[in-house]
Amino acid sequence: MTRKKTASSDGQAVRKQVRKAAKPGMGKAAYLEALKPMQERLNDAARWLAHTGRRLVVVLEGRDTAGKGGAAYAISETLNPRQCDVVALGRPSDRERSQWYFQRYVPHLPAAGEIAIFDRSWYNRAGVERVMGFCSEQEAKVFLRQVPDFERLLVDDGILLFKYWLCVDQAQQEARFADRLTDPLKRWKLSQIDVQARERYAEYTRARNDMLKATDTPHAPWTLVDFNDQRIGRLTLVNHLLSHLPIEPVPQTDIVFAPLRETPLKESYGRGHAPIEAHRP
Amino acid sequence: MTRKKTASSDGQAVRKQVRKAAKPGMGKAAYLEALKPMQERLNDAARWLAHTGRRLVVVLEGRDTAGKGGAAYAISETLNPRQCDVVALGRPSDRERSQWYFQRYVPHLPAAGEIAIFDRSWYNRAGVERVMGFCSEQEAKVFLRQVPDFERLLVDDGILLFKYWLCVDQAQQEARFADRLTDPLKRWKLSQIDVQARERYAEYTRARNDMLKATDTPHAPWTLVDFNDQRIGRLTLVNHLLSHLPIEPVPQTDIVFAPLRETPLKESYGRGHAPIEAHRP
Amino acid sequence: MTRKKTASSDGQAVRKQVRKAAKPGMGKAAYLEALKPMQERLNDAARWLAHTGRRLVVVLEGRDTAGKGGAAYAISETLNPRQCDVVALGRPSDRERSQWYFQRYVPHLPAAGEIAIFDRSWYNRAGVERVMGFCSEQEAKVFLRQVPDFERLLVDDGILLFKYWLCVDQAQQEARFADRLTDPLKRWKLSQIDVQARERYAEYTRARNDMLKATDTPHAPWTLVDFNDQRIGRLTLVNHLLSHLPIEPVPQTDIVFAPLRETPLKESYGRGHAPIEAHRP
Amino acid sequence: MTRKKTASSDGQAVRKQVRKAAKPGMGKAAYLEALKPMQERLNDAARWLAHTGRRLVVVLEGRDTAGKGGAAYAISETLNPRQCDVVALGRPSDRERSQWYFQRYVPHLPAAGEIAIFDRSWYNRAGVERVMGFCSEQEAKVFLRQVPDFERLLVDDGILLFKYWLCVDQAQQEARFADRLTDPLKRWKLSQIDVQARERYAEYTRARNDMLKATDTPHAPWTLVDFNDQRIGRLTLVNHLLSHLPIEPVPQTDIVFAPLRETPLKESYGRGHAPIEAHRP
Repeated sequence: MTRKKTASSDGQAVRKQVRKAAKPGMGKAAYLEALKPMQERLNDAARWLAHTGRRLVVVLEGRDTAGKGGAAYAISETLNPRQCDVVALGRPSDRERSQWYFQRYVPHLPAAGEIAIFDRSWYNRAGVERVMGFCSEQEAKVFLRQVPDFERLLVDDGILLFKYWLCVDQAQQEARFADRLTDPLKRWKLSQIDVQARERYAEYTRARNDMLKATDTPHAPWTLVDFNDQRIGRLTLVNHLLSHLPIEPVPQTDIVFAPLRETPLKESYGRGHAPIEAHRP
Repeated sequence: MTRKKTASSDGQAVRKQVRKAAKPGMGKAAYLEALKPMQERLNDAARWLAHTGRRLVVVLEGRDTAGKGGAAYAISETLNPRQCDVVALGRPSDRERSQWYFQRYVPHLPAAGEIAIFDRSWYNRAGVERVMGFCSEQEAKVFLRQVPDFERLLVDDGILLFKYWLCVDQAQQEARFADRLTDPLKRWKLSQIDVQARERYAEYTRARNDMLKATDTPHAPWTLVDFNDQRIGRLTLVNHLLSHLPIEPVPQTDIVFAPLRETPLKESYGRGHAPIEAHRP
Repeated sequence: MTRKKTASSDGQAVRKQVRKAAKPGMGKAAYLEALKPMQERLNDAARWLAHTGRRLVVVLEGRDTAGKGGAAYAISETLNPRQCDVVALGRPSDRERSQWYFQRYVPHLPAAGEIAIFDRSWYNRAGVERVMGFCSEQEAKVFLRQVPDFERLLVDDGILLFKYWLCVDQAQQEARFADRLTDPLKRWKLSQIDVQARERYAEYTRARNDMLKATDTPHAPWTLVDFNDQRIGRLTLVNHLLSHLPIEPVPQTDIVFAPLRETPLKESYGRGHAPIEAHRP
Repeated sequence: MTRKKTASSDGQAVRKQVRKAAKPGMGKAAYLEALKPMQERLNDAARWLAHTGRRLVVVLEGRDTAGKGGAAYAISETLNPRQCDVVALGRPSDRERSQWYFQRYVPHLPAAGEIAIFDRSWYNRAGVERVMGFCSEQEAKVFLRQVPDFERLLVDDGILLFKYWLCVDQAQQEARFADRLTDPLKRWKLSQIDVQARERYAEYTRARNDMLKATDTPHAPWTLVDFNDQRIGRLTLVNHLLSHLPIEPVPQTDIVFAPLRETPLKESYGRGHAPIEAHRP
């Protein structure tokens, strides 16, 4: 955690490191090729969950820009959205804020055969809330004390619970913040809170380490994944998840499509209705 | 709607047409290049909605395999999931089935600044439910009578409502069904109901035309989009949506990132915690 | 609506009228005796609803102190609370306020066999919200225009809808406000808003008359009931409701209790457990 | 728990005991007189809760006919229904049944200043579900193991939790069952399940004692109250609750009603609107 103060830390070294961090790692084509068989196995897992009625919770945590959303998408992309729910809750209302802290998360826990991926979770209280002062130190402490019990109740009830913390160095984070600032498709991801948050990298580290100490339990362990290269990070995470699910083969239900007996039809419309002109760029 | 029965409709002609339909249309790279500026404008639209508090509902309907999910993704992909909700409801419970038909859709209508994309919607009753016999003819008729009033209430309340019907010919549908049967990433999209549904292409056409006749109203018109080429379909749909939203420019909130003053930090962990080994394929 | 200004309106006449209004009307014993057979018929009605799957909505509206809560209780008291729901919503959250006005009421509409009694309802907008300035005149007008369509959708869907407006003169209202001020069991019913509301009796009258004009429709008519004597008001309301429900006799399910074959047991507890001492006043 | 088999257990002795049990205890007038000051103190408690933001959960458990509903009503009758919620959940849906057992109760936990009275609660699993075989022995055991942790999470979060078990002897229960069978206002309370349940008085005792053993914890103790006389039972329960709440005096908000300056108005209606004729029995 010691911070080397060098003569050259006049900005130049910083920019250099950030530029270096911004460099792409694994190529997209290679990534997609490696992801595909994993997504097939995720589909096998989903079929197994549906068949056995087991329930799966995946908690994705990490600093801003760490890649939680992208990881959630890598898992859920090819699954049935009615089976696999990505839960990304907004700010609590005043009423929710006054309730039992876990109360607003509980309704999103999965039913039989379902998957709930939490893109940020109850761990907000140990991270952003604590570091940014949105909760009191006392509330953060109560939370850290309650988590292991809360999670044991879920695991004890038969829920499969996986908790991933996505690691990213500050230079990489800076590069991604810069990217969000300029890319109009990512600009919405930035808020004034991020401006403050990026100044507090070290505080986040401390808060994260407290969290690991208090909540890395045998019944609900944390898995840390390096997301400095997001693609490698996602592959690593999905691979870990797949290799720790006690999946057993479940055959596909048999569906047979007899050949159509007649010439395939074309769309035809009543009077006054027709498709609009195609937009061909 | 007349169906030419030809001597060669022994399967050969069918297969030929299906094979032809399966051929890819627009290339992926060209599609992504054309989509990107549209997604930038979607981000402008989202900012405008947030700024003005307007609410947007996009209804996506069409036969099985028409491309509703892909269209929803093209719109929502780069937007804030807390602002833009893709609503894909499962089967109603018995209790829901006995309530006012629209009751289970209403809670998903957007609040100020939000977007709700319905991937299948209340129009289920005019399509799959009617054709497959999941509701009575009487219920379908009540529905078709109620829809214009229901939608006028929403529009009159200030909600921006766009309804798209995605068109696809039977040969193309067959090709996509075949694809789902063999692609393990898409297999979950198939059920026994599809086996029956594909036999009823003509009934679906009739039901769709009834629906258009009853619910293509001045206050809530339908827009038909040819999705025989999904990529061109998506571009056409998004382009239509963008050009019909009364968007006015809303500047980005100003966010300034001062340069970091110190050497960027690296992740550091407490004792016993470290990232797992990367999975490099 | 003309207000006689008399020489004696120095307070004396006012107090006299209020005192007179406060006098009890129908006695409690007579009321309960008359209510009982009606509650039996309400139980018949509930059985009929459960048997036929019909749904019943009762809207109770009226000025403050009119007796809405008491009327709701007279109906629901002896019914199964899992079948008969008294809906008394609090203030809308900011998010709800920005949604379609009817959106927060819709989830409380009854499922098959159920009764929903609205103690205040969507008509808030035509009454308290309009008179106290919690909505704009424009919003009130949109509401009055939308109500008939909204209610026709419900009625057309088969819901039995009864709307009651409970009438109370100002002197009686004053007497009841005074009662709430002094009775510690009713004090919670008073708020600062009531202080202002009681000054606006005439505005409420005008707003109510606008509401009747716009929303007293053939498919969802209003019934006005004099609640200056609350007990007679309740009997009148319940009697009206019962005589307008198309109830048909539904026999009780047959339940036979064979005599116990053994001596009845007494409660017995494990070590260290016993009832606390009775509190005998 | 031993059951004396006597020669006279041919039914006569049974009937005699049941008849004796049916005899009324405390008179209604005396009960109401004793209850009133308690309800005033409950209003003080409610004001204190609202003022401090504390949250109160009251769990009411006991055999069929023990008097849970009546006890809930004694507490809630004079409180603001928007502050004090009586939670009486119906049977879980199939989806709920497959979720974490506590999941469907959690949303009903109180927010700041609120009271939630559970008329039957999560303890269903230790009582009716276990005795009637609606859950497996294994599920009942998991439940009994989880309860203390679940409740500690709530208490640790600052929720005030009171758990009451209402005691009733079998003869008294028989008398009440008989009453429900004949009183048309109470008939809905009976179902086929009751027929079976009344045969299992002893099994319920055993299950209740197991429950007490496992869940009567220092942080969430059980209080047993004799409800063989329901009125005395209610007074005892409310008295216990009041004397264990750490209430501090909170003054009423000051509300001043200036005398009306003008003659009180009478209701007046637009053309065509008038109250219906009063129903005077």
